Amino acid sequence: MNATTKLKPETLEKLARVSTATLCTQLFKRGLRNVFIQGVVRLTDPSCGNLVGPAFTMRNIPAREDLDQISAFENPEHPQRKGIESVPPGHVLVIDCRGETRVASGGQILTTRLLVRGAAGLVSDGPVRDSGPIAEMDFPVYCAGGSAPLNLIHHHAIDLNVPIGCGGVAVYPGDIIVGDSEGVVVIPRHLADEVASDAAEQELIEVFVLERIKAGAALPGTYPPDAETRAAYAAWRKERGA
Amino acid sequence: MNATTKLKPETLEKLARVSTATLCTQLFKRGLRNVFIQGVVRLTDPSCGNLVGPAFTMRNIPAREDLDQISAFENPEHPQRKGIESVPPGHVLVIDCRGETRVASGGQILTTRLLVRGAAGLVSDGPVRDSGPIAEMDFPVYCAGGSAPLNLIHHHAIDLNVPIGCGGVAVYPGDIIVGDSEGVVVIPRHLADEVASDAAEQELIEVFVLERIKAGAALPGTYPPDAETRAAYAAWRKERGA
Amino acid sequence: MNATTKLKPETLEKLARVSTATLCTQLFKRGLRNVFIQGVVRLTDPSCGNLVGPAFTMRNIPAREDLDQISAFENPEHPQRKGIESVPPGHVLVIDCRGETRVASGGQILTTRLLVRGAAGLVSDGPVRDSGPIAEMDFPVYCAGGSAPLNLIHHHAIDLNVPIGCGGVAVYPGDIIVGDSEGVVVIPRHLADEVASDAAEQELIEVFVLERIKAGAALPGTYPPDAETRAAYAAWRKERGA
Amino acid sequence: MNATTKLKPETLEKLARVSTATLCTQLFKRGLRNVFIQGVVRLTDPSCGNLVGPAFTMRNIPAREDLDQISAFENPEHPQRKGIESVPPGHVLVIDCRGETRVASGGQILTTRLLVRGAAGLVSDGPVRDSGPIAEMDFPVYCAGGSAPLNLIHHHAIDLNVPIGCGGVAVYPGDIIVGDSEGVVVIPRHLADEVASDAAEQELIEVFVLERIKAGAALPGTYPPDAETRAAYAAWRKERGA
Amino acid sequence: MNATTKLKPETLEKLARVSTATLCTQLFKRGLRNVFIQGVVRLTDPSCGNLVGPAFTMRNIPAREDLDQISAFENPEHPQRKGIESVPPGHVLVIDCRGETRVASGGQILTTRLLVRGAAGLVSDGPVRDSGPIAEMDFPVYCAGGSAPLNLIHHHAIDLNVPIGCGGVAVYPGDIIVGDSEGVVVIPRHLADEVASDAAEQELIEVFVLERIKAGAALPGTYPPDAETRAAYAAWRKERGA
Amino acid sequence: MNATTKLKPETLEKLARVSTATLCTQLFKRGLRNVFIQGVVRLTDPSCGNLVGPAFTMRNIPAREDLDQISAFENPEHPQRKGIESVPPGHVLVIDCRGETRVASGGQILTTRLLVRGAAGLVSDGPVRDSGPIAEMDFPVYCAGGSAPLNLIHHHAIDLNVPIGCGGVAVYPGDIIVGDSEGVVVIPRHLADEVASDAAEQELIEVFVLERIKAGAALPGTYPPDAETRAAYAAWRKERGA
Repeated sequence: MNATTKLKPETLEKLARVSTATLCTQLFKRGLRNVFIQGVVRLTDPSCGNLVGPAFTMRNIPAREDLDQISAFENPEHPQRKGIESVPPGHVLVIDCRGETRVASGGQILTTRLLVRGAAGLVSDGPVRDSGPIAEMDFPVYCAGGSAPLNLIHHHAIDLNVPIGCGGVAVYPGDIIVGDSEGVVVIPRHLADEVASDAAEQELIEVFVLERIKAGAALPGTYPPDAETRAAYAAWRKERGA
Repeated sequence: MNATTKLKPETLEKLARVSTATLCTQLFKRGLRNVFIQGVVRLTDPSCGNLVGPAFTMRNIPAREDLDQISAFENPEHPQRKGIESVPPGHVLVIDCRGETRVASGGQILTTRLLVRGAAGLVSDGPVRDSGPIAEMDFPVYCAGGSAPLNLIHHHAIDLNVPIGCGGVAVYPGDIIVGDSEGVVVIPRHLADEVASDAAEQELIEVFVLERIKAGAALPGTYPPDAETRAAYAAWRKERGA
Repeated sequence: MNATTKLKPETLEKLARVSTATLCTQLFKRGLRNVFIQGVVRLTDPSCGNLVGPAFTMRNIPAREDLDQISAFENPEHPQRKGIESVPPGHVLVIDCRGETRVASGGQILTTRLLVRGAAGLVSDGPVRDSGPIAEMDFPVYCAGGSAPLNLIHHHAIDLNVPIGCGGVAVYPGDIIVGDSEGVVVIPRHLADEVASDAAEQELIEVFVLERIKAGAALPGTYPPDAETRAAYAAWRKERGA
Repeated sequence: MNATTKLKPETLEKLARVSTATLCTQLFKRGLRNVFIQGVVRLTDPSCGNLVGPAFTMRNIPAREDLDQISAFENPEHPQRKGIESVPPGHVLVIDCRGETRVASGGQILTTRLLVRGAAGLVSDGPVRDSGPIAEMDFPVYCAGGSAPLNLIHHHAIDLNVPIGCGGVAVYPGDIIVGDSEGVVVIPRHLADEVASDAAEQELIEVFVLERIKAGAALPGTYPPDAETRAAYAAWRKERGA
Repeated sequence: MNATTKLKPETLEKLARVSTATLCTQLFKRGLRNVFIQGVVRLTDPSCGNLVGPAFTMRNIPAREDLDQISAFENPEHPQRKGIESVPPGHVLVIDCRGETRVASGGQILTTRLLVRGAAGLVSDGPVRDSGPIAEMDFPVYCAGGSAPLNLIHHHAIDLNVPIGCGGVAVYPGDIIVGDSEGVVVIPRHLADEVASDAAEQELIEVFVLERIKAGAALPGTYPPDAETRAAYAAWRKERGA
Repeated sequence: MNATTKLKPETLEKLARVSTATLCTQLFKRGLRNVFIQGVVRLTDPSCGNLVGPAFTMRNIPAREDLDQISAFENPEHPQRKGIESVPPGHVLVIDCRGETRVASGGQILTTRLLVRGAAGLVSDGPVRDSGPIAEMDFPVYCAGGSAPLNLIHHHAIDLNVPIGCGGVAVYPGDIIVGDSEGVVVIPRHLADEVASDAAEQELIEVFVLERIKAGAALPGTYPPDAETRAAYAAWRKERGA
């Protein structure tokens, strides 16, 4: 399955309503243990709620002083700038900063351009600069906090839309990125449809389980649910028409 | 002195009113330098103010893929689940996650069960999942932030209520755990009574010192107080009937 | 140029109005890549906005148990206490804690004394204790978060106003310290005048660029600006009388 | 299967003749990815070659200054000393030091006692002291190098022969420990028989493959072997009577 | 200048006779501060002395459990295997392992194939497996030590001969790699000719300086040499006919 | 007691014959837990055996690109060069590199000058360059391994013979430095006489204990020795005339 394989029409919407915790459990059930981007937090509080969209990637290698001067940006083909102009609408720009936390991946102007172009969000395993103004934007930004030094000090953008690592996780172009207040999970594209369905199911039963726990039920038999709890859940669900 | 030795009736109440900074100073005066759990922050803003209570512990070792599958939770004797059902009311569940930050110690359902059962709080040197909903709970939770992957990926719960390390600090069952907005201190049980008294004393004099500093007093003679300042403090205290 | 060389009268005021990101770019253009203090966040939300002022430094070495007892503070010449009494008004106390995050650099009483004495702010690459009360102070404090254990556990204050490292950056007495919500930059004193001017210029053009980007302009030609954009900027600037 | 389940008589001998690399591959084929103890090197060059034997474990928690004084060793029931007196002949003492590298796990006298008692070897994820004299011993010792400070500074031995973590790997009492010049692998006891057989098979074919590669064969078809290479291997093996 | 630009015929030979320390100084004089691969040691003691040759690169991203099974190697186009079959004679295979030290980059069979194919050497910022047998090979291997787990556990080879990072340093295909007993330096290809010449010059004068220092000369005037020392050096050099 | 206080004439000689492990134990008995320099190994194998001598210190802060150019060394007052010319015969140069492992503290020429001037040895918590040739010198060198980049990339030498931190340990000028194959311990000068005596005593009894352990004695009663063992030791010692 490649990066442009069609997803079911409802998949992205379903994914927008489930937590990254649930998605990690669903992927764990399928043998995938390393899907949560480490070292990254949500910087903004976007009105859209969760971040959801396919990955468009950018790869950085370490900077070299003779190549990575301010003048490098005068080249309109500079991959960092070209990358931002290339992210398709609805896609998430995922940047591989090799976990380097001492300098920024980008700043307010580039993030604003992403927003204007209709990108779904930004994920970087490095920090951003202008983190104060960016934190006020209505746009999903996940990164390693804020840091004022510019990217050229340690990064050289080299490739667009190739498989990368981000926060220790493999990200292939077209993989489905989901972010909530906890962080960002990477769903291999060919699993997105089934994971979306099963995650929605899981969350429904966990709503029921949580109600029971709040009402005083003990864990054994309730979480995970035994036959009796499952029957009660089926009835509860029927009532709710869910 | 063992984990069930009686404390003075007023000790826990006194401890709830002093800061972890003061408690660290009191323990330092007694030769204890390593009592503050490292790498842990307060996730919630509980109405009870400080966390105070005796420790009930849970120990994790690294997971092994053949043992630590989702099905493991179907066993009602699974130590993670059993542990939560065993924490005595008023006790603090302290979890040894070996400082592993890549996966969660537990999530909203388990934390809710702890709350319902009357536990005093939760301390873990790993993150929690569902950190968004947990942050809204009226329950003291201290942990290494939020992380979506489930515990089974890196943890195998193995023991309950044995001595553990948490955030680099020894925690013996029954030790008194105190948490404020800064973090969590572990007080060896046999020192709790005297430390509580001396900490309350120390904080009273620091209120006085801080007033003086705010009013323009220089540090020498004021902090630490010399004989004159101590005399002024004695008078101030008498006035206040403290 | 030494620590007391006069700056232009408007320099500090200009620096108070620009971001640390802009200052890092200006210093990068001058060949300085390592000017942003790593591992430090703003703890308070001071009404003065940015922190600006010349550095007054304090140096710590590792503690030794026989020297670093509570009684050490009874000596009025103890460098930590003397340092706080020596910071000239308008200066920033910058503390070298060797990046040690396990214990505090200082607490509420010392910070209050700094404020009362008219210091411009506090920067430490270690945490502070009493971080809750300090966070409420109207005083710029940058540090590695909060931590309850006292400084004597790992620090011995040894020198005042000597060149130090802080967060991996060289800080010479008299260097100009600027902090915003993102962090703290160290400007070598002899560069402060020119960097202040150029930073103000850079921010003005970036206001214009950001407007254009918000209005839908693409990056090429806009950021960095080409001749056409520069002409439009000149006109815009003239209109604004800037 | 518990710690005393019988292994096939030839299993330990087979394991002594294969590399930890081969064993990691065999365990990976069975879904086990985390079996190699991280951060540990072989300190000695024992005449027995590889280390092989069932694990006997010791668990440490962080030290506490009031408990962990020199006088603690006067208690003959001190778990560190008792542990060394309890390791059954042919077993490997595996010590959980929580990866703490600043102090030693033990020294020459304890290691000598282990040797005299007939232990198969010592594995610790902390350093040893007296690493110079120990390096000359004819006894397999794997550890995090040498470090002079004694264990009491950071460790309190608390448990014997319970499941532990060592170098990030789960170690259950009775698991089979194998060490070569590269490091130490932990084989879950119930897999030891089959892993030993398959590893021996794998190494035999790799001897053949390496011969071919040395003779100029290209990787494709040779490594991994295709049908033709497998046939040639079968013939080669028959010749050798292996 | 691209990866195939011709070097002067004597350049590689000159580089084989100078130390990486000297090369770092020469590159520092040209403004390049980040040219030494961090975290890598020489594993072998090759008869050829220093490693010298142009870089041929391999890039890894994090593994994903569904893709990175043992069966992956059956594909003759697997980039790790194809990469080894593609390294041109005289070139150095440089592998980007993202500094991951928990698993191997490769082992004895692959390294032997490199040797047979006439590669100049192997550099990886991860460990190798079979480090014992590899250490005996007459082939320059630089890596992060030895580690038994196979690459598939954490790596997915994805690209050949693209710019990469290795040990924190940018490596472009065709850059000149030089390794001595201290480690590995990366020389941008367009600087190789001049750096080789100047390094040879520098080492000659340092031979003279070291002789003087051994004979009792003080540092001032000798290192760096003043006019008088430079004159003595010129005479010494003339005598030697160098 | 200051840095020039006289030691007993036999103290240094006694210290040369005991291990750093024993010295750590003696200092632990006196309440000093942090005396072993972390992250440092012995690079050379000097004929003198252990390193012993009073500390002469050098302090580095982070480099700044405008100050730390190659030309800096032309100043004969450059503290790195001046420091080497100032170490008194018999003293140990101890360099504070802030644990920075990416660049060297110094190289072969400077180390040779130290040797010629009669210094007792070199200790640095950074690496050295020219580590290959230095490893062949008959001179005690302890450092964080070898690294080719020059000090100016990350260090600015700023102070001589002031209290410093090295490998996490406080070093005051005149403290007694002892190094063996395991590493380096720092003895506060005022404790050197008594620690030397007690360490010699401890090692003698440990020779006896080790003999007994080799002969099959169990730990209880032998290590630590009980009354009977102590009596046997007294006899053994008398026999030996020790």
